[in-house]
Amino acid sequence: MNTEGEGSDLPQDKTHLAARIATAVAGTDLLAITVRSDIPVGRGLGSSAALAAAAAAAAGAADPFGVAAAADGHPENAAASALGGLVVAAVLDDGPMAARLALDPGLVFVVIIPDRMLPTAEARAALPASVAHGDAAFNLGRMGLLIAGLSDVRLLVPEATADRLHQQQRSVLFPEAPGLLEGLVAAGALASCWSGAGPSLLGICDRSSAAQVRDAAEGLMHAAGVSGRSLVLEADLGGLEVDPL
Amino acid sequence: MNTEGEGSDLPQDKTHLAARIATAVAGTDLLAITVRSDIPVGRGLGSSAALAAAAAAAAGAADPFGVAAAADGHPENAAASALGGLVVAAVLDDGPMAARLALDPGLVFVVIIPDRMLPTAEARAALPASVAHGDAAFNLGRMGLLIAGLSDVRLLVPEATADRLHQQQRSVLFPEAPGLLEGLVAAGALASCWSGAGPSLLGICDRSSAAQVRDAAEGLMHAAGVSGRSLVLEADLGGLEVDPL
Repeated sequence: MNTEGEGSDLPQDKTHLAARIATAVAGTDLLAITVRSDIPVGRGLGSSAALAAAAAAAAGAADPFGVAAAADGHPENAAASALGGLVVAAVLDDGPMAARLALDPGLVFVVIIPDRMLPTAEARAALPASVAHGDAAFNLGRMGLLIAGLSDVRLLVPEATADRLHQQQRSVLFPEAPGLLEGLVAAGALASCWSGAGPSLLGICDRSSAAQVRDAAEGLMHAAGVSGRSLVLEADLGGLEVDPL
Repeated sequence: MNTEGEGSDLPQDKTHLAARIATAVAGTDLLAITVRSDIPVGRGLGSSAALAAAAAAAAGAADPFGVAAAADGHPENAAASALGGLVVAAVLDDGPMAARLALDPGLVFVVIIPDRMLPTAEARAALPASVAHGDAAFNLGRMGLLIAGLSDVRLLVPEATADRLHQQQRSVLFPEAPGLLEGLVAAGALASCWSGAGPSLLGICDRSSAAQVRDAAEGLMHAAGVSGRSLVLEADLGGLEVDPL
């Protein structure tokens, strides 16, 4: 087993996620595995699901999405990795389901990636057991606005990512986050939110302002004393692709 | 003031919603108002918002949607009435916002309209003050599936309308509802759900099976002892239209 790029500091043995997935799919551990990843680990960027989907596909799984969703414990990141683009996903009685939604090609994504990791287990533990019924309804309304705005950049408003279910609650683990999120919008992002369970933060941008928002993000991180980096990312519309050997 | 059709049994005086809205918009109560409505009142079909939007527009309001959303206390029905089609809506700091989403033209809607009214206040009082965080997340996932399925009938699955926030809780007010909802899907609806706060129930259907589902709905209502009617409705894509005098 050999790993390169992001995550290459993880133990390269049979406990590695790629080894576990590939072994389970292939039914043998007599495998030569090479992992090359550009996705930082433990930052709320879905690296585990992407790796699981890739390992499952490379090992010949008929349904890499299903394997990755099961490995990840929830289907959203696996769906994004497998299908690409904007996806919705849920686990139904007979397995995970994912579907594509329209994504305006004019949108690009500025992501703030702190050097500090935020373990997903810790980020989940910060969530309350229950929430006000009105807060649940609030997020449903905002999710509707977000889907509308992601399908048509002209409809995207900052309130589309307003949230009462997890961002504020998780900010105890990352107190600089609210200021950085506000700063992204002030710098020109159309909306901003946590990336998954964090600590990465996302500025959803019109293509024309992305470079300026990325530059501003560097300044915001410096001013807040948050070490890390900031990237402009395009949506991947291809999803999982398996190159023939 | 003169009213015809649905709701014509309501008092035809200055307390009538149309009179209140039109008077407030026009700044005078020296108005001749005629209301003709096909929308049953108090059934969770949004008749109030539709009437408010129509009265506001007829009285010359610049923003009938805003007037109707304020009158209704929430923006969803007002948005549907004003814009038509599939809409999302939310109240932001500077007022209500609505946006259109894609709606597959192959979808039609079978609606079960019980004769019995279910006052919205009672339906709201049946909701719990708080819900499990996981239930709030559950509904967000299902809402994503529903938006995907409404935009493309091939993606619509019955689980897309699965809900943990209001349907089961409101069923104490309408114990026959769960059986009717299941019956609609068993009869060929792609999914089924409460219409708003009820008691009307919606079967979301492929156009080819709508008549059969409507016929089945009549049988389901009869078997459950629920008096009322069942209609096949097309989505209105035009929204609010003002005819010149």
